[in-house]
Amino acid sequence: MLSRKDLFKDTLRKAAHAWKRIIELRLSEEEAHMLRSYVDQPAFTDLHWGMFIPAIKGQGTEEQHEKWLPMAYKMQIIGCYAQTELGHGSNVQGLETTATFDPQTDEFVIHSPTLTSSKWWPGGLGKVSTHAVVYARLITGGQDHGVHGFIVQLRSLDDHSPLPGITVGDIGMKFGSGAYNSMDNGLLRFDHVRIPRNQMLMRVSQVSREGKFVQSDVPRQLVYGTMVYVRQTIVSDASCALARAVCIATRYSAVRRQFGSQNGGPETQVIDYKTQQSRLFPLLASAYAFRFVGEWLKWLYADVTQRLQANDFSTLPEAHACTAGLKSMTTSVTADAIEECRKLCGGHGYLSNSGLPELFAVYIPTCTYEGDNVVLLLQVARFLMKTVSQLGSGKKPVGTTAYMGRAEHLMQCRCEVERAEDWLKPSVILEAFEARAFRMSIACAKNLSKFSNPEDGFSELSPDLLEAAIAHCQLIVVSKYIEKLQQDIPGKGVKRQLKILCNVYALHLLHKHLGDFVTTSCITPKQGALANEQLRLLYSQVRPNAITLVDAFNYTDHYLGSVLGCYNGNVYQRLYEEAWKDPLNDTVVPDGYLEYVWPILKQHIRTARL
Amino acid sequence: MLSRKDLFKDTLRKAAHAWKRIIELRLSEEEAHMLRSYVDQPAFTDLHWGMFIPAIKGQGTEEQHEKWLPMAYKMQIIGCYAQTELGHGSNVQGLETTATFDPQTDEFVIHSPTLTSSKWWPGGLGKVSTHAVVYARLITGGQDHGVHGFIVQLRSLDDHSPLPGITVGDIGMKFGSGAYNSMDNGLLRFDHVRIPRNQMLMRVSQVSREGKFVQSDVPRQLVYGTMVYVRQTIVSDASCALARAVCIATRYSAVRRQFGSQNGGPETQVIDYKTQQSRLFPLLASAYAFRFVGEWLKWLYADVTQRLQANDFSTLPEAHACTAGLKSMTTSVTADAIEECRKLCGGHGYLSNSGLPELFAVYIPTCTYEGDNVVLLLQVARFLMKTVSQLGSGKKPVGTTAYMGRAEHLMQCRCEVERAEDWLKPSVILEAFEARAFRMSIACAKNLSKFSNPEDGFSELSPDLLEAAIAHCQLIVVSKYIEKLQQDIPGKGVKRQLKILCNVYALHLLHKHLGDFVTTSCITPKQGALANEQLRLLYSQVRPNAITLVDAFNYTDHYLGSVLGCYNGNVYQRLYEEAWKDPLNDTVVPDGYLEYVWPILKQHIRTARL
Repeated sequence: MLSRKDLFKDTLRKAAHAWKRIIELRLSEEEAHMLRSYVDQPAFTDLHWGMFIPAIKGQGTEEQHEKWLPMAYKMQIIGCYAQTELGHGSNVQGLETTATFDPQTDEFVIHSPTLTSSKWWPGGLGKVSTHAVVYARLITGGQDHGVHGFIVQLRSLDDHSPLPGITVGDIGMKFGSGAYNSMDNGLLRFDHVRIPRNQMLMRVSQVSREGKFVQSDVPRQLVYGTMVYVRQTIVSDASCALARAVCIATRYSAVRRQFGSQNGGPETQVIDYKTQQSRLFPLLASAYAFRFVGEWLKWLYADVTQRLQANDFSTLPEAHACTAGLKSMTTSVTADAIEECRKLCGGHGYLSNSGLPELFAVYIPTCTYEGDNVVLLLQVARFLMKTVSQLGSGKKPVGTTAYMGRAEHLMQCRCEVERAEDWLKPSVILEAFEARAFRMSIACAKNLSKFSNPEDGFSELSPDLLEAAIAHCQLIVVSKYIEKLQQDIPGKGVKRQLKILCNVYALHLLHKHLGDFVTTSCITPKQGALANEQLRLLYSQVRPNAITLVDAFNYTDHYLGSVLGCYNGNVYQRLYEEAWKDPLNDTVVPDGYLEYVWPILKQHIRTARL
Repeated sequence: MLSRKDLFKDTLRKAAHAWKRIIELRLSEEEAHMLRSYVDQPAFTDLHWGMFIPAIKGQGTEEQHEKWLPMAYKMQIIGCYAQTELGHGSNVQGLETTATFDPQTDEFVIHSPTLTSSKWWPGGLGKVSTHAVVYARLITGGQDHGVHGFIVQLRSLDDHSPLPGITVGDIGMKFGSGAYNSMDNGLLRFDHVRIPRNQMLMRVSQVSREGKFVQSDVPRQLVYGTMVYVRQTIVSDASCALARAVCIATRYSAVRRQFGSQNGGPETQVIDYKTQQSRLFPLLASAYAFRFVGEWLKWLYADVTQRLQANDFSTLPEAHACTAGLKSMTTSVTADAIEECRKLCGGHGYLSNSGLPELFAVYIPTCTYEGDNVVLLLQVARFLMKTVSQLGSGKKPVGTTAYMGRAEHLMQCRCEVERAEDWLKPSVILEAFEARAFRMSIACAKNLSKFSNPEDGFSELSPDLLEAAIAHCQLIVVSKYIEKLQQDIPGKGVKRQLKILCNVYALHLLHKHLGDFVTTSCITPKQGALANEQLRLLYSQVRPNAITLVDAFNYTDHYLGSVLGCYNGNVYQRLYEEAWKDPLNDTVVPDGYLEYVWPILKQHIRTARL
């Protein structure tokens, strides 16, 4: 309920308080990260720790590390990550800001040549950061060497005023009333701002004193390692956000009763309606599925890191495609699912104190940052087409595309389901998802081959390619869930419940994408109907444990931040109490009554001063 | 960017100003309605004019009209519509507020017996309304006669303070930063509040001086006529809201360029990407489709009204089911489509000044009010099942269910499409949609018949029934669009464009619900692939006229309220200018810097007072 200015000031206060505690308690980096994430509000510190420092670590030389990192770790400087511009987001190679080397002074001149080259969106830039890693086109001797990173001081460390040549400000309000409005997403323009040559991040490329551009022998693929890491955390976060929304909707669905009262008895809990179950339980299953695929991605990142250290880049393209696809798929599903959970809470879900509106508003940028979800899926599709094209060449597909190695089988296999319960077999589900994903890729490849120019074909068929990429990503999640179930899982009956959810996850996807499965002849219409029948039975099995399954996420009421999702289910009392806290209820007669309502009621509106 | 209190005060000011102009300009009721709707912000006046007055008109006696309407028309009293309670929304029959007749004093005693009986959500109730139509259980002589409406004064006309026994306030913040936060959605509790007997709305039922409950001979079906009217306006509004979002996304997609630069030339307009087209153009087509079905609903309402006046109730159930279904389907699609348009605007769509976040936040309650969308679809499904069950009885299905009369044909017909262009024939499309809708209904009816208790079956199969209802509603929209194209349409080439959009509308639905069409054997997988191919060709035909097709909605920049959607396409300049208007940019150094940032930078945080 705060104005933008008050909200922002409050965020600064929280960030300062968090930092104070981190120092007082001598927290480790990991602990500090956890403390900040539990503040649960976007702030400039996210960018300082999550982007500015990692950029210097990843792209800076050891010398640069020694100079900048100690200051950054102590927050003697506060940094942000100034990449996107008004005119360019996804196409990083199209950035327009220039960094021109001046051999006379041994400096780079950072400049914004056009309006669209204004840096736009970087968090922490608008009002707080003293420094930024700025991405700009490196120009030496009149030659453009593409986009590189530069450390640029933006504001005075004495009085915080912008340095000469720098125009900086906030880009304005964003979705929601809280959400990212606590963040000073900023704009930034340079008018021939000079920085010393050694502030170019020079791990991968260097500019010499004479202005000579040199590429070092550090493999560029190293960048992908970081990407795999960042996207792995995004997938884990997707699971957490989804679990939060599902926890609220599930608990409230058990409290809320509507219709179905017989002989004056209580009405039916809305969680007992099949329409509610068929929308809610697949989301519950997805929250678990994303958690398991997130855990697996952690393993994948470790594996990739180990290989990189041994100069083995063989699995990198597949790992990159896989994380890109999972980032895209899980965040898109989560964004939609949060809104679906809000709808599942009926009218009261629209209240801010349900927690769902702001959860939605703060989550949705995830679909855009670190790679726009559609652009990422197209990268996956490109990788799939490449994999398909190499199938004949003897080059074996690896990792999550290994299934494509069984091309002959997957093109011929027929689903053996005869009764609804046959759909409970993991092998049956897995084969159906593999065959569907593979056949969709093959169909795309076939259609692509009809075009004389492959790029024209790729662009023309891109909607179909997106669908093939999604089918592949869904297969990954299903298969990793099934793998998880082959492990030991402690707790009595836990594995059984997780198996049920795994089947719910797979069969709801099968029902949703029935057209894919049937038109590729992976299953028959009859088998599709049996899957739907089995799905209904599974919902009945989820129902008795639904509350336990969301309690298991272990969110405190404080963190959940939802009146509808409170643990003890005392929803109506809480709603009533919360209502009175609205500022509008400070007075019985609202501010503005005398000026604007009274003259209407008393028929004085013609002469009223409005 | 206003706080809740300031936003609300500002809304009161706008409402007063609008009322002043309405009086000064002597506007007709229709003109006044238009003026208010162009203020384009939810306010208490919406409920006064849209619910309070119509409720008295529809449910009050002539005597009551004479007493209350003149005061209401002059706004000497301001009213709201107090139906929903904390514990009951959809299930109106479950409302708990009581109105007990006291024959001793000839009064009703209005009372809130439980916490959940608190009135909750009524707009205009929280801070402004002096009166309300309150829905409560009528109790006379210890007998409960169900829910009826009562006119209750809430606040003093002298000083606006709540009358004795009345607790009233605002229910708090809602989704978004603006949206419905300009509305004082309220809560209301009664502690034995007494009103004269003649304040029960007595057109349909009466309570006599002795406390005898009497039903008048006014047909209850009249209520349905009003429902048809209200839902028809909701469908028209859906088209307007969708058109607004599509207009923004389409214009910005033509301005925005990303990737695809060749030899230093300009990058590709994002509207030229097939992935963008395949998401955007179906929404453009839907905006037109909803407009035409909205126009047809106006005709339907007129037809129903005429029949009611002639005591012909025969078409009412069908008209009621049809409007319920269309309300549900068009508002659900529109809510999702607004968010999809925001995504189609990439990162900048997340800025408030894109107009899309608030359009979404203000639109989504439409999916809940005037009938929850899922509950409505279940009503449609129930009507469809009834229609199917009567097919053998010789009772001919009417109106939008008339197609079910051709049962034999629809169960046997086979789609004749052999080449992609065959999908352009309206008759082919219509038959495919009719067969699909019919076969889905029949399949549901068959599965229902396996249950010994039909209600158990209905509840168990409700997810499938929802899908059948949606198929039916989509058929209505497709068929009304096709009917529209059989009429004369002025303007050179206009009809051709509208035909293309009609095909886009139908074929994108066919692709989206391919599983339905194929598993019911309405089309073959091959025909599905041909439809998809044709769809791609159609997108290319929409592209050259896409901008004109959204300009035709004729929104002013002022009303559109979107920097990204501005008519002249000067998006980047506008974004840059708007950014500086944020309050955070009032000062170079933000409020809070000295207290919370400086101590961090200067390593004084341990001793700082936070």
